[in-house]
Amino acid sequence: MSLSNQVKIILIETTSSGNIGSALRAMKNMGFSNLCLINPKKINFEEVKALSANAADLIDKIKFFNSLDEALEGSEIVVATSSRQRKVPWPTESLNDLSPTLISEIKKNKKISILFGREDRGLTNEELQKSNIHMTIETNKKYPVLNLAMSVQIVCYKLFLDYHKSKKVSKNKYWDVPIAKHEHVTNLIDHFLSISEDLEVFNKGNPRQIESRIKRLFRRLGLDEMEVNFLRGFLGGVEKKIHKKK
Amino acid sequence: MSLSNQVKIILIETTSSGNIGSALRAMKNMGFSNLCLINPKKINFEEVKALSANAADLIDKIKFFNSLDEALEGSEIVVATSSRQRKVPWPTESLNDLSPTLISEIKKNKKISILFGREDRGLTNEELQKSNIHMTIETNKKYPVLNLAMSVQIVCYKLFLDYHKSKKVSKNKYWDVPIAKHEHVTNLIDHFLSISEDLEVFNKGNPRQIESRIKRLFRRLGLDEMEVNFLRGFLGGVEKKIHKKK
Repeated sequence: MSLSNQVKIILIETTSSGNIGSALRAMKNMGFSNLCLINPKKINFEEVKALSANAADLIDKIKFFNSLDEALEGSEIVVATSSRQRKVPWPTESLNDLSPTLISEIKKNKKISILFGREDRGLTNEELQKSNIHMTIETNKKYPVLNLAMSVQIVCYKLFLDYHKSKKVSKNKYWDVPIAKHEHVTNLIDHFLSISEDLEVFNKGNPRQIESRIKRLFRRLGLDEMEVNFLRGFLGGVEKKIHKKK
Repeated sequence: MSLSNQVKIILIETTSSGNIGSALRAMKNMGFSNLCLINPKKINFEEVKALSANAADLIDKIKFFNSLDEALEGSEIVVATSSRQRKVPWPTESLNDLSPTLISEIKKNKKISILFGREDRGLTNEELQKSNIHMTIETNKKYPVLNLAMSVQIVCYKLFLDYHKSKKVSKNKYWDVPIAKHEHVTNLIDHFLSISEDLEVFNKGNPRQIESRIKRLFRRLGLDEMEVNFLRGFLGGVEKKIHKKK
């Protein structure tokens, strides 16, 4: 069960070889590998290779078809990306709404195909009507026409995100130094306040509730031990200057 | 309050004019319009125009800068896109986790900058350390390196989605003082580092990558204006003692 095995990305009559290469890279970045091309315009493989970057290994796996029906063989759910509502309204959902449903179908081992139309004209009515559902990508109404490879990227990103959300990798909590203990921060605050008094900076400008503000400042950071030690060293250095002077 | 007014997309030393055009289209598709370029390699404007398609109107609005600091002026939250964990770990969240937070900040009228690095090498440590938070885009571990324009597309898509998802006005998290601007925090860091040198506290104990650690410390807090003013006052007080002593 995986995005790579169960999802086909199908591009219909693509004109730009650059878009094919970019789509491959976008797919591999998100864990997809099955690209089907239906009657692409003459392909410049050098350009495909350049834009696919480290996804060039997927070029040999591209499947070519003369008809959409052949490409869809074996598919259980066919999704057509579309930016416009058609004369005959079809079940339509946004990517954001549909993606979790698709993922739950993938987890039930369903085979899914996602269709992307021509750069200039999208999908024909006939092609759209081969799909189970139309999917729109959320965009700004003032300029809703996405580049083809960008559409592939966004769809793959959203599916990747929802696929991995269930077995969510915990947030990167990596930090290289242990967080300082409460009491060490307390000592730091006391030290800072006492030196502030020595320096008579409390009265200058006299901001409101300055002591509370200092405490809030040092508490909210989640200071680590090394930071506390350095700040204590800094304050120690200041202290020395003050006392030498006296 | 809008994605268009409050979010800057900043590309650093971009090599490919195609990527710049594609990024513009990706941005407009999702309702963004502010692109900043820091020292791009020689731009082929014909190519930018071709790939930006109906976003070509945004080409005249591109802002060019020689330094990242200039581009970040006025920013309240700086997000650096990054695929690798660095020596000094920075607060890091995935796009999926961070996006709703950024949207709630946008709804509080915050100014946000999102940094994208070079096609081949991403962002430098110095650039990463100017950010409040690092953001990773979820990808397949086997090939995690996204094309630059694709990264812009995914980030813009996710923000667009979350922006429109939360139709409810977000509850304002209460904070009584405005968040400090990027450049004021920069000044504070520089001031602190210079005094640390005067105090010769850098060499004592010599913790690893201390300068990076100081930057991370001040950047990650989301300091407010009053805190910055107070800390500047504090450092000013220390400075006086140092110089009196001499």
